[in-house]
Amino acid sequence: MKERRIGVVMNGVTGRMGRNQHLERSILAIRKDGGILLKNGGILIPEPVLVGRSEEKLRRLAHIYGLDRYTTDLDTALSDPANGIYFDSQVTDRRAEGLLKAIAAGRAVYCEKPTAVTTAGALALHEAARKAGVKNGVVQDKLWLPGLLKLKHLLDTGFFGRVLSVRGEFGYWVFDGFQWPAQRPSWNYRKEDGGGIMMDMFCHWRYVIDNLFGPIKALSALGAVHIDRRRDEEGREYRATAEDAAYGTFELENGVICQFNSSWDVRVRRDDLLVLQVDGMNGSAVAGLRDCRIQSGAMTPKPVWNPDIDSPIDYYENWAPVPTRDPCDNAFKVQWELFLRHVAEDGPFPWDLLEGAKGVQLAELGLRSWKERRWLDVPPLAAP
Amino acid sequence: MKERRIGVVMNGVTGRMGRNQHLERSILAIRKDGGILLKNGGILIPEPVLVGRSEEKLRRLAHIYGLDRYTTDLDTALSDPANGIYFDSQVTDRRAEGLLKAIAAGRAVYCEKPTAVTTAGALALHEAARKAGVKNGVVQDKLWLPGLLKLKHLLDTGFFGRVLSVRGEFGYWVFDGFQWPAQRPSWNYRKEDGGGIMMDMFCHWRYVIDNLFGPIKALSALGAVHIDRRRDEEGREYRATAEDAAYGTFELENGVICQFNSSWDVRVRRDDLLVLQVDGMNGSAVAGLRDCRIQSGAMTPKPVWNPDIDSPIDYYENWAPVPTRDPCDNAFKVQWELFLRHVAEDGPFPWDLLEGAKGVQLAELGLRSWKERRWLDVPPLAAP
Amino acid sequence: MKERRIGVVMNGVTGRMGRNQHLERSILAIRKDGGILLKNGGILIPEPVLVGRSEEKLRRLAHIYGLDRYTTDLDTALSDPANGIYFDSQVTDRRAEGLLKAIAAGRAVYCEKPTAVTTAGALALHEAARKAGVKNGVVQDKLWLPGLLKLKHLLDTGFFGRVLSVRGEFGYWVFDGFQWPAQRPSWNYRKEDGGGIMMDMFCHWRYVIDNLFGPIKALSALGAVHIDRRRDEEGREYRATAEDAAYGTFELENGVICQFNSSWDVRVRRDDLLVLQVDGMNGSAVAGLRDCRIQSGAMTPKPVWNPDIDSPIDYYENWAPVPTRDPCDNAFKVQWELFLRHVAEDGPFPWDLLEGAKGVQLAELGLRSWKERRWLDVPPLAAP
Amino acid sequence: MKERRIGVVMNGVTGRMGRNQHLERSILAIRKDGGILLKNGGILIPEPVLVGRSEEKLRRLAHIYGLDRYTTDLDTALSDPANGIYFDSQVTDRRAEGLLKAIAAGRAVYCEKPTAVTTAGALALHEAARKAGVKNGVVQDKLWLPGLLKLKHLLDTGFFGRVLSVRGEFGYWVFDGFQWPAQRPSWNYRKEDGGGIMMDMFCHWRYVIDNLFGPIKALSALGAVHIDRRRDEEGREYRATAEDAAYGTFELENGVICQFNSSWDVRVRRDDLLVLQVDGMNGSAVAGLRDCRIQSGAMTPKPVWNPDIDSPIDYYENWAPVPTRDPCDNAFKVQWELFLRHVAEDGPFPWDLLEGAKGVQLAELGLRSWKERRWLDVPPLAAP
Repeated sequence: MKERRIGVVMNGVTGRMGRNQHLERSILAIRKDGGILLKNGGILIPEPVLVGRSEEKLRRLAHIYGLDRYTTDLDTALSDPANGIYFDSQVTDRRAEGLLKAIAAGRAVYCEKPTAVTTAGALALHEAARKAGVKNGVVQDKLWLPGLLKLKHLLDTGFFGRVLSVRGEFGYWVFDGFQWPAQRPSWNYRKEDGGGIMMDMFCHWRYVIDNLFGPIKALSALGAVHIDRRRDEEGREYRATAEDAAYGTFELENGVICQFNSSWDVRVRRDDLLVLQVDGMNGSAVAGLRDCRIQSGAMTPKPVWNPDIDSPIDYYENWAPVPTRDPCDNAFKVQWELFLRHVAEDGPFPWDLLEGAKGVQLAELGLRSWKERRWLDVPPLAAP
Repeated sequence: MKERRIGVVMNGVTGRMGRNQHLERSILAIRKDGGILLKNGGILIPEPVLVGRSEEKLRRLAHIYGLDRYTTDLDTALSDPANGIYFDSQVTDRRAEGLLKAIAAGRAVYCEKPTAVTTAGALALHEAARKAGVKNGVVQDKLWLPGLLKLKHLLDTGFFGRVLSVRGEFGYWVFDGFQWPAQRPSWNYRKEDGGGIMMDMFCHWRYVIDNLFGPIKALSALGAVHIDRRRDEEGREYRATAEDAAYGTFELENGVICQFNSSWDVRVRRDDLLVLQVDGMNGSAVAGLRDCRIQSGAMTPKPVWNPDIDSPIDYYENWAPVPTRDPCDNAFKVQWELFLRHVAEDGPFPWDLLEGAKGVQLAELGLRSWKERRWLDVPPLAAP
Repeated sequence: MKERRIGVVMNGVTGRMGRNQHLERSILAIRKDGGILLKNGGILIPEPVLVGRSEEKLRRLAHIYGLDRYTTDLDTALSDPANGIYFDSQVTDRRAEGLLKAIAAGRAVYCEKPTAVTTAGALALHEAARKAGVKNGVVQDKLWLPGLLKLKHLLDTGFFGRVLSVRGEFGYWVFDGFQWPAQRPSWNYRKEDGGGIMMDMFCHWRYVIDNLFGPIKALSALGAVHIDRRRDEEGREYRATAEDAAYGTFELENGVICQFNSSWDVRVRRDDLLVLQVDGMNGSAVAGLRDCRIQSGAMTPKPVWNPDIDSPIDYYENWAPVPTRDPCDNAFKVQWELFLRHVAEDGPFPWDLLEGAKGVQLAELGLRSWKERRWLDVPPLAAP
Repeated sequence: MKERRIGVVMNGVTGRMGRNQHLERSILAIRKDGGILLKNGGILIPEPVLVGRSEEKLRRLAHIYGLDRYTTDLDTALSDPANGIYFDSQVTDRRAEGLLKAIAAGRAVYCEKPTAVTTAGALALHEAARKAGVKNGVVQDKLWLPGLLKLKHLLDTGFFGRVLSVRGEFGYWVFDGFQWPAQRPSWNYRKEDGGGIMMDMFCHWRYVIDNLFGPIKALSALGAVHIDRRRDEEGREYRATAEDAAYGTFELENGVICQFNSSWDVRVRRDDLLVLQVDGMNGSAVAGLRDCRIQSGAMTPKPVWNPDIDSPIDYYENWAPVPTRDPCDNAFKVQWELFLRHVAEDGPFPWDLLEGAKGVQLAELGLRSWKERRWLDVPPLAAP
């Protein structure tokens, strides 16, 4: 088998997400698998080049993973033609600079979401890539969550009949730091530092809804700063200025209503941290990160409202799990493999920078809807 | 012990709700208990007089329950001064006529919700009763659901600390009549017959929110006709014109956000047909019709997002039931006892026709918000 | 990162406790972690020097763990200035000699409890260390049991409201050697060899109560030799002269009553080998070695005494576990890390020889209370 | 079969205990059974005569149970020779007067505990009955709790081998009336009204210990007013002056140690509201109100103290229930039948006024031990 090596310049992998999901569980995991088997019988092996601002951190990271290529000099890394791919998981406001350099160098680009802080900025990135003719992609990992793959399979095979509505409930309790240390970084809770759950999660809801249920026509959104005093990583009290909960209702072109709550201030009494309930004419499903349970028409009970007695129906019992037929791979790794194939052998990869811009658009419209207290249409995206 | 008997003219008890909840489980159940022990040591015994339009149906009903007083002549029933109370559970658009007659006759009036189809109409009833100086009340039964009483106790005793948000999920699957007979009357699904889940449920949400969580400041609502073809009681297909799902977000004066979904097209994967989740700084609770489970701060787990493994936390386990310390009575009966005491010995009864009008107001504003696609403030109610 | 090595002279690690908990699970485990990260960015690595009376046993132990430093000559070991710490887990009556030598050599000292067999002896050790100005500490491992850490967190965050009372139940069935070999050493059951459960456990109860619930004001104690014939390690029958059960009641300065039973003759029907039940105005908790379950006011059932029917309440159900939010380390290791930081960078370490003397004091007073059959006050400790 | 009727003058049955346990579940239940089959083949039928101070209450009670004999005039009731038995469940300080009148009238006397508020008073009653030669008895209901009967059977059949120690834990959470209404009368918490858990429960512990485990030699007791502010039946706040918890340690003549906690301020995490754990050389048992579980030597696990892992032993699993071989009758009714047989056919009945006085003695000594802060011997009781 012919081996083909492709350099992947990874910028921002000293952060938690970049390191765990993209470096360790995706690129290094693909290397441990022995690379990707291409259609022509060849083997594609990604070769990471770590890029960052702190040489010390890079050295330590390289040491831990037994890597030898790292640098603080992005330009040099991009100038090597063997490095065919540039990946970016820096903080959002540094993303454009890195991507544009890579595009200018003619590299295929792949990056985390949000791609930019404004729709205009996100579209500009898409336009630059388009003009330069470089392949590009944006992380949309939730599409490959095992639970959502099961849901997708139900949708594709017509289990639901006509879909009527979707409930999304995302969130968990993030400690405020007074009685227990917070498990998320404090900048998430400061608007001035780019925090806020709406920008974070609406980017996800955009591609989840678009890919699973249909194009979004309009939305109404509300944010709230439920907890406004927290303690940061050093134990210092600070004022939380960014919304920690976002309530969104989305109307799709096909009439489906999606009602999604996202919150860092909610205690979890449901199947999982993210739960999507889909109700259709012929059946319903409730998907979590890994599992998905269904109730078809034939399994649907006929409840009677009688608070004088304990309910004769256990509402958790009339649901059956969708079996896990094959082990599922890490969601980030699956998308990485698709992107690598896209670059190496032109495999399909519809999740490009335009799709990434749509996520930013939905978040931006959500923030505006909240401010203007009304429904807003979601217009088709065109390059500026 | 001195017995005091009070006649209760019951109009509309040939309907399901009037018969089951008000006649059998309330008035007749109070009679079986031997009446109500008043503070002065006396015993109050309600004596029902059934009123309706079909003598045949009334006769049958009276026979079943061993009653001898029934009539199709409301005026005569109201003219007997021994009949101190008029109760109305007719269809909404017949309510005003009956109530106004009873008010004119100087009887205390008690009725089902909605009290009218418009806020103006509901306020007019309140104004009429106020001017006539007759005692009056509106059914707000959900306040005495055992599960909501437990929730109220938690709120009153400060369990939550500051309340942040409330999720309400109400509904179940109402069969469309094609594959299984529908379990609700078909007029519920026809706008032209006064149907629609928003008018039905927002009346409830108004008093539940006001009484438990605080006054409502503004709302955004969306209705949807998810299923537009159904079969009626006779098996005839018809076009469903009234919304069968209503999505409402309510902002309270105190900053709490209440997000409530109501739907007759949703399959139930939750603790009960109605579930209220309350999240507060110190703890959360999930209440159903009879049960209520809590998770205090100390019981709150620290979840980690890792879809690569099955969740190490069972999100249903870290909740403990609020014990049932004393047996609970039927919610309708409890409110009836309070109304009877209100009439007989001036016991407190804040749930009057003005409160009933507030429910109609919220439903009306909900319909307008849906139409105008924007948030609407909820102004204080004043008589016309 | 700068590495700093510190020699730890470990005397008595050929015994079960010294070897398992102090050598293997603490010092060697810290070495496996790569040392301790100090605040100045340096790394502190402890280097054990095994000391004992049997060269043969030491050699074997060193071989098992791959260590090269061991000696039967304590003086030489202490004379090396690189050996900054002396640790002692010898039998109690040999403890003073080792500690005093180390103090004289200017080493920081750390040791097992009881520090001495009399309060006067324990205070003398404290006084010697104080005069020599050497850092010192005593093992108080139960404070870092995961279950007690959870309990401490509940206390610190005000879960209980005012604490009313504490029940402690410690113990299990130690086989008497006739039908099954005993699982504790026979000297534990001989007064003449320093045995007795009161001296053993009251040392623990002192720091557990002081640190968690408040200073002890007075105590009443009773010992009992429940089983007076046992078989020793060689199968020889012997007369058990030391108490194998101790019943203690402690009154705290703040009015809390702690009732603690300790027994080697009790079969276990409770959550764990050690169980502490704390009852407070707002809630109660039951802590074991690793778990802790709570019942808050809202979860408290209202039982009715009715022996004519099976209890409608399952008294184990209305309790919820305190979640394990982060993995817990070995209790001995955690305290070792704190002591190493105390020596290396002056980290806080309040559990010194004076605290150790308090444990001996409580045990001594317990024995006297038993003998004099009366309550005794617990006076503040002063050096002789 | 020959019927023999015996009048039972029941004084104090308008109170909760007297009415529920003695009138309804004992005397009336015996009547429903058709009376008691005597050894001579005759049938003994008790005929209650209700006596009290409020004619209104007596009339209502008689009406509810369909009885026709009641009076406020005790003397007349006692003067009827057909009324062979006098029963007293009045409040304690009224007991002597009623009993002495009945003794003077030559009636057999039976009464609730405590028989008096002082040992001297209790002995005087015993002496009066002895001199008058009337049969007499005191309620010691706990001896016939199904769970304690099973325990007695284990003791009688030698299951334990030598008994070593007994743990008794009695109590539950009595609400303080602030957040939930109290479920016990407020006088229980006021010393000035005869309240206090020590007088209440030590009377029980005396006969339970004497009858099951052996004669008590000495005791040490401590009381505590854990909650000193409560709300009474009318919602008024009051100062609780009587101890709501009592900690007692009892040394028996045979060397067994019984450690009993009694508390109204403890949340229940154990098998039942009252739990007795008995540990013996060959096995242990834990008895509740109705059930009893055992662990014999062969079932005894060998636990290892290792807090680094979850316990491999579930300490509730190695216990097996003692089966309920025959249905158990109400404990009060069983003792009533024994007393009726004692009167009618000289059946054995060792639980006389002297035994009742022993209960008062133990409570009185307990209060003194608490005050004097020392162990007290329990001397044999002699008439004054």
